[in-house]
Amino acid sequence: MNGAESLVRTLVDGGVELCFANPGTSEMHFVAALDSVSGMRCVLCLFEGVATGAADGYYRMARKPAASLLHVGSGLGNGLANLHNARKARSGIVNIVGNHAVYHQQHDTPLSADVEAVARPMSDWVRSATSSRTVAADAADAIAVACQPPGRIASLILPANTAWEAADGPAAPRSVQPRSTVSRELVRNVASILQANEGVTLLLGDAGLYARAKELAGRIAAKTGCSLLSEYQSAREERGVGRVAIARIPYSVDSAVAMLRETRHLILIGAKPPVAFFAYPEKPSVLTQPDCQLTTLANADEDIEQALYALAEELGALDTPPLQVATGPRPLPAKGPFTLEGIAQSLAAFIPDDAVVVDESVSSGRGFAPITQNAAPHDWLSPMGGSIGFGLPQAVGAAVAVPDRKVILLQADGSAMYTLSAMWTMAREQLNIVIVVFSNRGYKILLGELANVGGGKPGGNAMRMMTIDDPALDWQALARGFGMTSSRACNLDEFNRELALGIDHKGPHLIELVL
Amino acid sequence: MNGAESLVRTLVDGGVELCFANPGTSEMHFVAALDSVSGMRCVLCLFEGVATGAADGYYRMARKPAASLLHVGSGLGNGLANLHNARKARSGIVNIVGNHAVYHQQHDTPLSADVEAVARPMSDWVRSATSSRTVAADAADAIAVACQPPGRIASLILPANTAWEAADGPAAPRSVQPRSTVSRELVRNVASILQANEGVTLLLGDAGLYARAKELAGRIAAKTGCSLLSEYQSAREERGVGRVAIARIPYSVDSAVAMLRETRHLILIGAKPPVAFFAYPEKPSVLTQPDCQLTTLANADEDIEQALYALAEELGALDTPPLQVATGPRPLPAKGPFTLEGIAQSLAAFIPDDAVVVDESVSSGRGFAPITQNAAPHDWLSPMGGSIGFGLPQAVGAAVAVPDRKVILLQADGSAMYTLSAMWTMAREQLNIVIVVFSNRGYKILLGELANVGGGKPGGNAMRMMTIDDPALDWQALARGFGMTSSRACNLDEFNRELALGIDHKGPHLIELVL
Repeated sequence: MNGAESLVRTLVDGGVELCFANPGTSEMHFVAALDSVSGMRCVLCLFEGVATGAADGYYRMARKPAASLLHVGSGLGNGLANLHNARKARSGIVNIVGNHAVYHQQHDTPLSADVEAVARPMSDWVRSATSSRTVAADAADAIAVACQPPGRIASLILPANTAWEAADGPAAPRSVQPRSTVSRELVRNVASILQANEGVTLLLGDAGLYARAKELAGRIAAKTGCSLLSEYQSAREERGVGRVAIARIPYSVDSAVAMLRETRHLILIGAKPPVAFFAYPEKPSVLTQPDCQLTTLANADEDIEQALYALAEELGALDTPPLQVATGPRPLPAKGPFTLEGIAQSLAAFIPDDAVVVDESVSSGRGFAPITQNAAPHDWLSPMGGSIGFGLPQAVGAAVAVPDRKVILLQADGSAMYTLSAMWTMAREQLNIVIVVFSNRGYKILLGELANVGGGKPGGNAMRMMTIDDPALDWQALARGFGMTSSRACNLDEFNRELALGIDHKGPHLIELVL
Repeated sequence: MNGAESLVRTLVDGGVELCFANPGTSEMHFVAALDSVSGMRCVLCLFEGVATGAADGYYRMARKPAASLLHVGSGLGNGLANLHNARKARSGIVNIVGNHAVYHQQHDTPLSADVEAVARPMSDWVRSATSSRTVAADAADAIAVACQPPGRIASLILPANTAWEAADGPAAPRSVQPRSTVSRELVRNVASILQANEGVTLLLGDAGLYARAKELAGRIAAKTGCSLLSEYQSAREERGVGRVAIARIPYSVDSAVAMLRETRHLILIGAKPPVAFFAYPEKPSVLTQPDCQLTTLANADEDIEQALYALAEELGALDTPPLQVATGPRPLPAKGPFTLEGIAQSLAAFIPDDAVVVDESVSSGRGFAPITQNAAPHDWLSPMGGSIGFGLPQAVGAAVAVPDRKVILLQADGSAMYTLSAMWTMAREQLNIVIVVFSNRGYKILLGELANVGGGKPGGNAMRMMTIDDPALDWQALARGFGMTSSRACNLDEFNRELALGIDHKGPHLIELVL
């Protein structure tokens, strides 16, 4: 058995059964080991950012880590943006990066780079294997880091000779600590804040947006009269009919400040203190009022559902019917010319039971949340690191994790350009994905941002940096290029028809919305 | 005047007149300043790796740096692979990376990242601007670093408020040191090695592969009987009829070792000690024999042409007719079914005078060099950092730098997937590029590498990691998707016709070679 085989066996034994790979020369023994070790499914991606983004999406839906397999420092560079997104989403990934053989690293070769230094900014844990005899133990350590809730990015650098030289065998899985629970004292303290004050808001994030946690929050709100909010975006929100509907803090600083203006006590439950996505001249960074008191009930690495249960119990709210449950009816499809509200309404009408919505709609989709609360129950996955190029890979990973569920990807056109080749992986693996492309032929978000930062009215040169209409991207041709079927909708009636067909379609399908 | 305007003015005053941009919110003032400052051409790229790769190509042909404009740590991550390639090619780039406002960086936002740490592994110089009053001076320093021969990667991080707050004005250009010259003593020493020994080889790299330097090397070879070799790849080789033809050290370790076996003295002229691209079991890392003596005549940061001139003068070779001058005739186009040799021969027949050949043909093109020596005079640009995704952006930058020359891009299909959206920039800017896609529907290089590393015969899983034929990429559809014309060739006769048409075509055109 060589090091690569011991590594792959360790991964499989540790529950890592999926590998999103874009391998190169230094990973060839890993690839060869896939034929000698059973239990590892390897999905080829044609760009590293697809592999890391898919691993993020896989973790969110499978709730266990996949491996990504990348090639040397520059390949890792290509994977960083979606590792960043995954890390901010607290997804666990065993990120394996091949490197030159240990004894070859002293030479100045074309691909020489400080792989550890490239990995560090977007990783929670970085280690370079030093020997084929210990690479299995390194892998077991990496798995334990990635699995530790909430997930972490464990980057294991694999010099080629540690893969091809002899190994003793796989390493046994390490034990993983469960999420720690919050103290009774803290729960009592938060309960007393809720009981003694007006203007209390629970701000939910992370696992606080799973259905059961939201239900507990709804009971607490019903019992105490507090408000419920969620962070602007969430890694995975379980929502739709039958679930507590919670408003999101909006992206716009002014709107966010207005929404939080009456909050005197903000209780953070898997959420971070709310701050502006970007700074803007004359606008605050911190979204809460200066006299607002922030209290953390539970961090993302603690057991959020337990904390909410304990709080509800303390408040005697366990049997209180929850507030704000979405009861339907499911909206009817909208008709006529395209409006963003109409698109949201049609989505809400057609989202099938148990669908997964991956949202990289960027500027187009900011108002979709309220309108889709009464859709069929679904999971909604958002980019957590703000780095575009998230949607297509995320959809790949989600669809691989839950193949029987329909994935609906809301994809802005500009953002799709960063990881476009994910469409090929969708076609090859015949993933169950409908891509809805918001083809507005521009970086519409930047027009708003230019105004926000006080950049004035854009002139000809600036406008040319924010429009992608010359030439217009031909989305149906791009889909065909990657081996995927597609259609086109120029109004809501066409969208309704194509969305219904796309959802019925087996395998991936792209619908271009010509906005 | 705000900081952004002072920055853009400083760039223009310092000779940086081109910006390859993929901006985000934190770069909006830079973008706005493009309308108030004249003299800066900004080319929009839809992915950061296109911007950094284009800046590399621009430097190689313009011999002065362009700016790249990227967005925060994750956007910089997307640009790293081609920054790596540029750095290994010793191209100068003023790499501007927007970041959060200084006072906003203390907050944990989605895009928060250690931008300096991301920049460092692929940069020669990193600085974060701290104030709008000093950002112009920072830019002047960055330009000086990027311009210092050979070029360097100067990463200037631009917090948003240093762009929008008030500035005093542009900073004056810094002086740049010329390349240092080599000492008379060293020249005499090398001359005596050449005069006293058999088995001397001059190994040329960097500016040693410009036409005039090669001519001097040819005179020295004619006078002394030494051999001439070039590194496996070069940032820019001036070659074709009328120029000294120099064999390249091959990629294959066995072939490279064989080629260097008789060399007892290796004189490095802009070249590094020859080492294997990758390590392989049972193969050496160092390509020269253990008893071969290496002597450096000139490094890439020294004046290579001066060193060769001084050496030729010392040897009395200035008037000796150079050896190995390619005298033609230009090959005739090959006919019949596709062979790699036939493709090279047809290329040699059709390469127009003064063309720029960008070579990311990877495994397909390894044998092209000897066959194209008798083509019309042209420049040949190769990836120096080994990171794929090089070709399309490099062609963008070269074509922007020398708009009157035809750029012929030899592009492997797998490698094209990393920076595919460069095709849109080609279409938007109507760049003078013919893309020849080697559509072999696989990572053919990896099949060879798997054998090289002793990975055995690939089984089903491993083969699936090295083939991209299911589905096959439809290159004509992809070209149409990005707004570019295309054609297809299934044999050499069709290739000859389409290549001639493509070269005559104004603007970009893609030819898919169905191999």
